Amino acid sequence: MATYYMPVKVFEETDVVRKKAGEIAKLGSKALIVTGKHSAKANGSLDDVIAALDEYNISYIHFNKIEENPLVETVMEAVDFAKNENVDFVVAIGGGSPLDAAKAIALMLKHPEEDSSYLFRAGGDDSHLPLCLIPTTCGTGSEVTGVSVLTRNDIKTKQSISFKIFGDIALLDGKYLESLSPKVLKNTAMDAFCHLVESYVNNNATIYSRIVCLDGLSSFKNVLPVVRGEKKPKLSDYFNLLRTSTYAGMAIAQTGTAIPHGLSYAFTYNLGIEHGRACGYFLAGYLKMACKKWTCLSQELSDYFKTNLNNQFSTVGEAEVNLILNTAGIASVEEFEKLYALVCEKVEVEEAKLNKELDNTVNDLFNNKAKLSVAPFQLSKEELTEIAYDISI
Amino acid sequence: MATYYMPVKVFEETDVVRKKAGEIAKLGSKALIVTGKHSAKANGSLDDVIAALDEYNISYIHFNKIEENPLVETVMEAVDFAKNENVDFVVAIGGGSPLDAAKAIALMLKHPEEDSSYLFRAGGDDSHLPLCLIPTTCGTGSEVTGVSVLTRNDIKTKQSISFKIFGDIALLDGKYLESLSPKVLKNTAMDAFCHLVESYVNNNATIYSRIVCLDGLSSFKNVLPVVRGEKKPKLSDYFNLLRTSTYAGMAIAQTGTAIPHGLSYAFTYNLGIEHGRACGYFLAGYLKMACKKWTCLSQELSDYFKTNLNNQFSTVGEAEVNLILNTAGIASVEEFEKLYALVCEKVEVEEAKLNKELDNTVNDLFNNKAKLSVAPFQLSKEELTEIAYDISI
Repeated sequence: MATYYMPVKVFEETDVVRKKAGEIAKLGSKALIVTGKHSAKANGSLDDVIAALDEYNISYIHFNKIEENPLVETVMEAVDFAKNENVDFVVAIGGGSPLDAAKAIALMLKHPEEDSSYLFRAGGDDSHLPLCLIPTTCGTGSEVTGVSVLTRNDIKTKQSISFKIFGDIALLDGKYLESLSPKVLKNTAMDAFCHLVESYVNNNATIYSRIVCLDGLSSFKNVLPVVRGEKKPKLSDYFNLLRTSTYAGMAIAQTGTAIPHGLSYAFTYNLGIEHGRACGYFLAGYLKMACKKWTCLSQELSDYFKTNLNNQFSTVGEAEVNLILNTAGIASVEEFEKLYALVCEKVEVEEAKLNKELDNTVNDLFNNKAKLSVAPFQLSKEELTEIAYDISI
Repeated sequence: MATYYMPVKVFEETDVVRKKAGEIAKLGSKALIVTGKHSAKANGSLDDVIAALDEYNISYIHFNKIEENPLVETVMEAVDFAKNENVDFVVAIGGGSPLDAAKAIALMLKHPEEDSSYLFRAGGDDSHLPLCLIPTTCGTGSEVTGVSVLTRNDIKTKQSISFKIFGDIALLDGKYLESLSPKVLKNTAMDAFCHLVESYVNNNATIYSRIVCLDGLSSFKNVLPVVRGEKKPKLSDYFNLLRTSTYAGMAIAQTGTAIPHGLSYAFTYNLGIEHGRACGYFLAGYLKMACKKWTCLSQELSDYFKTNLNNQFSTVGEAEVNLILNTAGIASVEEFEKLYALVCEKVEVEEAKLNKELDNTVNDLFNNKAKLSVAPFQLSKEELTEIAYDISI
């Protein structure tokens, strides 16, 4: 894993799609536009992309069937739709779902002889069609990560594909967030916040990745009144929300996510709980466990960030959790719990069913030693269960 | 210009060249190693590179004639040396000079039919051989910028080539700095500091680039005791010095440098004053002018950084200059002047000759409207002269 790698060329300004039409045009001569069913049309981004392509006489076809938590089957449907159309680049518009799906589509269009098993095969060739990514929510950061998470019906969960696929360019325009429902805005902002925290409380963290996290957490602090619903957002707030999720993406591009994301996938698959809300559900439990069990930090990180255990903090975890929450304008884990309750709807599932799902996701994650090892402290199955059940006790 | 773009894959750890030999091996099957005359041998980096290449049975040829402030002629000599040798990638080791030269060499080796005028031609094809960059000083940040500055005897100054050439990978190891002379360490650290300040006090600055600057300035604060010569550096300090210059490189990769660099080139060419020392010579003057004349900041930057003009500051420039210096652990412009005097040798040139050179560099820069417009305030010729003469009055 590199210490720092984020090769996407990022452009951020109002009307960026129209203003940077020339950058899109450099990617190829016929585009596959990938979107969900409605939002790209509703928020104006699709019209902007079409106008930009028209300006440079670039033809396109449009696949608009990407669902939330996109299925491998939908990715392959898009590949079938496009593969005899001489498409030579992909433009994705939307939240994490269309962006993640588009990465997989761009990969498969370069390997048309392969079937969908290629997506999860280790060691394959990662060449792919050029990609332009246009986020219209403020959660995933997919526009600056190599991550593509798809829903696999064969193993009944969500899973990252085996390839890191970065976009060539990302075009960020806060105006596309203006039509988001408050619920989607809040759930996706919670996802971004989880990315920042999980990247920081992470065994893969380096000085570089942590600095990006702290930058993103400072940015989150700026939008906290909007996330809390206390302030009606202005255009500059939408840009700040988008920037926060982009920083969060830059952070997880270095480290990957951690335990809350790991616990969330089956939860979202089986109970239909939105991604950011599902990740945030496990975050307080993860932070409490970090306070208890995170006792050791590399000398390098400790020196650089001057992590000191004074009278106030008895563990590395307490000092670090305090630092990251404070940087985000949140006083304590308890204050985060209040924020989560304010921002995300309560998970209302019959207790026996909920417990069964929690037990299942704990079992699955506990058997995924690679993901488990991302926490900067050892976790027994009982402790993982404690994290999972934290919110309900 | 993109809002953020830095595509180099950065690896940072002790013994990184040996540990990431596999990453170097991915770049090709025969390497051109580009170095200066002595230091790569002396600090162990050359031996590490050769061992890494040997491990993967990759053959190489070695060009070791890059001088400080590398000449276009030397670049072309390296191209002639390598062009019939089936070299398919370039490994550069050293300070800014070998790294900058290697970028130009990697470009020209891909365009062997062109002569040296290609380097300064606008709109050419920027494809180049893959590049691995290994910095062994802590100034240039060349390992993460697309910049290549060469010395042109035809127009008697230093100039950036017309192409942005980024490395594929950068390998950062603080141990290579251990054998730097205190003088080189200080001059190169001054260069990095100028990059951070000039990127911030810059018309091209965005929220993203400014955040990188502030990160780098915080990192500079960590190494200030070493730069001042008050602390004997440990290995972790060398890593911090290297990281500061890498952040500074990431910053200027977004914005370019500003007036002090612009004034320095002819100064270095004609008086042989080291690059960092030459840039630092003009920095206090630039900052004083910023305090006086920088009165306007975009709403976006002002909102994000909460730049406020309270009773303490009467201009945007005063508030901003105070912020960046304080972030770096420096109390005021006057404190920076003391730091410069402590860190860099006094420029000892006979007054009439010095004044002639200052007048010449002011004339040249004043006629370079593109460079002049990088300052976030208008500069008359008298004001540019005031900056140039600041240190001597």
